[in-house]
Amino acid sequence: MRALVLEKKGELALREIALPLDVGPDDVRIAIHTVGVCGSDVHYYTHGAIGSYVVRAPMVLGHEASGTIVEVGANVRTLKVGDRVCMEPGVPNLSSRATKLGIYNVDPDVSFWATPPVHGILAPQAVHPAAFTYRLPDNVSFAEGAMVEPFAIGMQAAARARIVPGDVAVVVGCGPIGIMIALAALAGGCSKVLISDFSAPKLEIAARYPGIVPVNIGEQSLIDAVAAATDNWGADLVFEASGSPKAFANLFDVVRPGGAVVLVGLPVEPVALNVPAAISKEVRIETVFRYANIFDRALQMIASGKVDLNPLITGTYPFSDSIEAFERAAAAHPEDVKLQILISDEKG
Amino acid sequence: MRALVLEKKGELALREIALPLDVGPDDVRIAIHTVGVCGSDVHYYTHGAIGSYVVRAPMVLGHEASGTIVEVGANVRTLKVGDRVCMEPGVPNLSSRATKLGIYNVDPDVSFWATPPVHGILAPQAVHPAAFTYRLPDNVSFAEGAMVEPFAIGMQAAARARIVPGDVAVVVGCGPIGIMIALAALAGGCSKVLISDFSAPKLEIAARYPGIVPVNIGEQSLIDAVAAATDNWGADLVFEASGSPKAFANLFDVVRPGGAVVLVGLPVEPVALNVPAAISKEVRIETVFRYANIFDRALQMIASGKVDLNPLITGTYPFSDSIEAFERAAAAHPEDVKLQILISDEKG
Amino acid sequence: MRALVLEKKGELALREIALPLDVGPDDVRIAIHTVGVCGSDVHYYTHGAIGSYVVRAPMVLGHEASGTIVEVGANVRTLKVGDRVCMEPGVPNLSSRATKLGIYNVDPDVSFWATPPVHGILAPQAVHPAAFTYRLPDNVSFAEGAMVEPFAIGMQAAARARIVPGDVAVVVGCGPIGIMIALAALAGGCSKVLISDFSAPKLEIAARYPGIVPVNIGEQSLIDAVAAATDNWGADLVFEASGSPKAFANLFDVVRPGGAVVLVGLPVEPVALNVPAAISKEVRIETVFRYANIFDRALQMIASGKVDLNPLITGTYPFSDSIEAFERAAAAHPEDVKLQILISDEKG
Amino acid sequence: MRALVLEKKGELALREIALPLDVGPDDVRIAIHTVGVCGSDVHYYTHGAIGSYVVRAPMVLGHEASGTIVEVGANVRTLKVGDRVCMEPGVPNLSSRATKLGIYNVDPDVSFWATPPVHGILAPQAVHPAAFTYRLPDNVSFAEGAMVEPFAIGMQAAARARIVPGDVAVVVGCGPIGIMIALAALAGGCSKVLISDFSAPKLEIAARYPGIVPVNIGEQSLIDAVAAATDNWGADLVFEASGSPKAFANLFDVVRPGGAVVLVGLPVEPVALNVPAAISKEVRIETVFRYANIFDRALQMIASGKVDLNPLITGTYPFSDSIEAFERAAAAHPEDVKLQILISDEKG
Repeated sequence: MRALVLEKKGELALREIALPLDVGPDDVRIAIHTVGVCGSDVHYYTHGAIGSYVVRAPMVLGHEASGTIVEVGANVRTLKVGDRVCMEPGVPNLSSRATKLGIYNVDPDVSFWATPPVHGILAPQAVHPAAFTYRLPDNVSFAEGAMVEPFAIGMQAAARARIVPGDVAVVVGCGPIGIMIALAALAGGCSKVLISDFSAPKLEIAARYPGIVPVNIGEQSLIDAVAAATDNWGADLVFEASGSPKAFANLFDVVRPGGAVVLVGLPVEPVALNVPAAISKEVRIETVFRYANIFDRALQMIASGKVDLNPLITGTYPFSDSIEAFERAAAAHPEDVKLQILISDEKG
Repeated sequence: MRALVLEKKGELALREIALPLDVGPDDVRIAIHTVGVCGSDVHYYTHGAIGSYVVRAPMVLGHEASGTIVEVGANVRTLKVGDRVCMEPGVPNLSSRATKLGIYNVDPDVSFWATPPVHGILAPQAVHPAAFTYRLPDNVSFAEGAMVEPFAIGMQAAARARIVPGDVAVVVGCGPIGIMIALAALAGGCSKVLISDFSAPKLEIAARYPGIVPVNIGEQSLIDAVAAATDNWGADLVFEASGSPKAFANLFDVVRPGGAVVLVGLPVEPVALNVPAAISKEVRIETVFRYANIFDRALQMIASGKVDLNPLITGTYPFSDSIEAFERAAAAHPEDVKLQILISDEKG
Repeated sequence: MRALVLEKKGELALREIALPLDVGPDDVRIAIHTVGVCGSDVHYYTHGAIGSYVVRAPMVLGHEASGTIVEVGANVRTLKVGDRVCMEPGVPNLSSRATKLGIYNVDPDVSFWATPPVHGILAPQAVHPAAFTYRLPDNVSFAEGAMVEPFAIGMQAAARARIVPGDVAVVVGCGPIGIMIALAALAGGCSKVLISDFSAPKLEIAARYPGIVPVNIGEQSLIDAVAAATDNWGADLVFEASGSPKAFANLFDVVRPGGAVVLVGLPVEPVALNVPAAISKEVRIETVFRYANIFDRALQMIASGKVDLNPLITGTYPFSDSIEAFERAAAAHPEDVKLQILISDEKG
Repeated sequence: MRALVLEKKGELALREIALPLDVGPDDVRIAIHTVGVCGSDVHYYTHGAIGSYVVRAPMVLGHEASGTIVEVGANVRTLKVGDRVCMEPGVPNLSSRATKLGIYNVDPDVSFWATPPVHGILAPQAVHPAAFTYRLPDNVSFAEGAMVEPFAIGMQAAARARIVPGDVAVVVGCGPIGIMIALAALAGGCSKVLISDFSAPKLEIAARYPGIVPVNIGEQSLIDAVAAATDNWGADLVFEASGSPKAFANLFDVVRPGGAVVLVGLPVEPVALNVPAAISKEVRIETVFRYANIFDRALQMIASGKVDLNPLITGTYPFSDSIEAFERAAAAHPEDVKLQILISDEKG
């Protein structure tokens, strides 16, 4: 099967590779349609590793995908051939302690697409457990289906935040994940979301959504902006989506007494947090690792029309131009939010 | 001061009455602008009592109000003369056990406008604690300000439900409170709300809002509608807003395993609940009594544009026609949602 | 294999029966040591059915069991031959929506020992998934291991209650489950538990535990007892463990404003609840169905010495006297709490 | 009135000072009986400041107190002359946003005894709002009553942790607050608490309580101890009670996936946290600032006998020897947990 293979740091090839396609009794086989290019894919390409995950052998990239069921295992009752679907890229041990608790995202044994040594799905077909494969509602396109994975991170952040309806939120960092969080927080019950960044083009994209208020921290203090928006009370919720150590320094200056800070952006190393400030406001701090039990919720939000992700798809490439797509992504244009690769040219 | 007085069951008068206007150190005095007519006001008019609350002496009606500050007490720092405001009609004992816990709505000592023997505010002026008086954002009109009280019940229901972003909800009963709950649930994080009733005109009003799906239970089974909308899984949340004993009978047939039912509508007497069905799905049941710490959240939702209550204001009367407004309300036209009375003719 | 078989309503036999003993890759095979006699086992014996679960074919009884691992499947890493264990009798579909959410107890596909048509484990051996088999700490006996199942219901009730440390609780009904709830609530954070019943002998057993206060409602009003114990504020938590329609009638008279009622006892039919009273206090109502993710917690409580269940084991029978044990249980002596049957005579 | 006055850093005097004793309508006047010496009192004595709170004028010390009501204000109905009581030292603005939410501990306007410039209560009498004055149950002594304040911090930590019954907890730091947390966590639902410190004498005191397991981290790795106690799963809850930057470094190595870390100890400056480790386990982090709505819960725990604080009272001084008590406390003997000063010699 022809796939996009990361041979090693900095070297991509669109080439034949043997991938297992045996369909177990609880599995489905999917003809892949659309795959989004994620920052982590790009980071493996440019750096060869993320933290302790190091690319030591050729690995197929890609984990944001939609497609069509072409075969179902003997036990599968929830899906059938022809169903349009998207897939959750992490598969836990179903018998593990974490999975039984419903927090399968933190199962130490989870296997996750395009995380070494596990292959991703930038390829024509893949086999996946039916339990982690979700039917697309009729009004959700393949392109949107391939956006569910990144949006699910925003939805997980919104779920972990335990939003109380009407909360005012701040999102620090206006990259793709920051925007996903802002959209999920708004759809998930916040009345208003301030999003901060240094990059005017990124903020301009986010600001097109009603309810999202851009704060250019090159021009304006975030603390002042939040104070003005909240009558000096502070934001109910602050989402950290930059991963930048500097951003962590003053998270507790913008949250209200008794509010919550949600950490999504992954810093490379331990970072300094103003714990005395957090304690004096008795702030709750949540952290977010991927998602669990969120794909169906993300799909509901898209299907109902509460969240429109189409404006964030800023470029689409045919499978044959996959390497070009990765080079474009690696160039990090601020006006790019999400680039997608079409494996199939089927409509929908 | 001239006020709308319920002399006794069935008898209203717009007449002079002495009302206390002393401004204590923590109080404000408000020139009332707009007052909504609530079902409970009408019920006191038509029945002379609600449960154990019996009208035994002439009582001013009205508790959904907006207006303008005309005087502030010595200690008041959060409000100033000229501020446009709306008022929370229930004032608890600030030193009580319930209030210290933040659940001041269930303080046994709460004093609530237009609940015998406490006067309401269908009058030109009222004195109220600053702590329960909320400034209207500039883009919120007096008419919307007077809608905050009924919307706050919907918001309290949404808050008590502990919505997880993307939840699918059902609201049973499409009266004014049912619609308020549906709007609050949608803005508060649900992806979709099915609302059920026998009345086509009421459903038609609710269905104008995107995300609200009407279910006419004179024509269609609610159980079937929910099954179809949720892949036979059931709704995450079911809000009971009818108070009708019949509605309570099958609440647990439409909720999913592990879902929640939120009881808002007040039945007159104990009602039969299918406890075995609730237990077999391990359903959580929440109840809603008025609201606490919700007015500011309701205002944020309106000010941000997430919730537009204007289409629900279906009639406006001058103060001099107050009795006519009550007679119209008592006639219970299905196409009426909220009637309002203008005490002042100031713009805004 | 020789097992205790319920041939049909009212007829028990200790006889040979073919039971599957194939060990799948994720299973273990257990030599059963001790089995407790549960009220539901007795009810199938005396009535032939519980609700919609009807005994239509001979069925082995028993679901409260401990034993020793004698064989492990190929994938099992968490257990080994010789481990002393207890078993969770309900096995869900690991790929189901409920199981992924961590609420596998409400998976509609759950298979539960001694619930028709599924056989129980009053037999020398059984095969079970390793994921639902728990190692006994060294200081937990087989007899205590066989008490984990009923205690787990109490623990689930305590978990669902979301006890805040220091809560005062009421348990309505002093049967075996009522006592389990009282012990779990105390160990789980309550400062004090009042337990009510008409039966003096049952209350006498419960009252031997420090922190449990008996209330004989044949002699004293529960409302008065709770008022006296809580300075007229009401109990933070009320657990219904009787299943009696009468008990449901005044649950909301003994709970405090903003408190919670937890329904554990299973009434046969819908029951009348004082919903107006519940709403006026904005009470939360939780329901409890078996348990999920609780066996390890129950074992920790026993192993740490916080909960001593030994005084509740009021009779032990050899396997050969199993029918006698059931007859004793069916006689419902108030001084009996738990009868156990020894399948093996191994020490421990 | 004669009081223990901190004249300035390092200088104490037992001398006459004018303190306001006017009893407002919602206040009570209390004859002080027992006052505990707190680490913060000692820190003001030895350093003249805690963070931004600087002693700039003579200040009476002491905030852990019990006594007897000698006068009640006109509105007070919950207390009467002769009641034995303890007092919550922080008084918020009852009309503030935080107080209305029930989180009055984080009200920016709170006034707290012995926090500059507010006087403490090491004096024969004090006036206090009745709402923050709690009657001692008959079986709670004045000495125990004066322990409620430090124990309340432990109880607040236990409440914020949202213990699920049976949780295994770790407390880092075995000072007085660490021990209070361990006791509150155990009584509040944990099955077992490991407590870590370098000081053998401190650990020896804690280890006298059943359920508390000492870990001397001078001799043994905390990570190893937790792994052994939890089958390599990690602790459900980790309480940080040392305030030491070093301790913060590896908090996330001992918590389980999906567990929680509760920060109680106040570091002087921002500290480095291993945020990547926290995120990979999706850990929840709570912070604790004093307490709110906890004194009554703390009293219930003491009165019920679940928590015995008497062994922690390691020295008692007459009022005339107050300065000696502070010198002893400043010497920081590891075998001292709590020193108390008797203002009155009344029994009880």
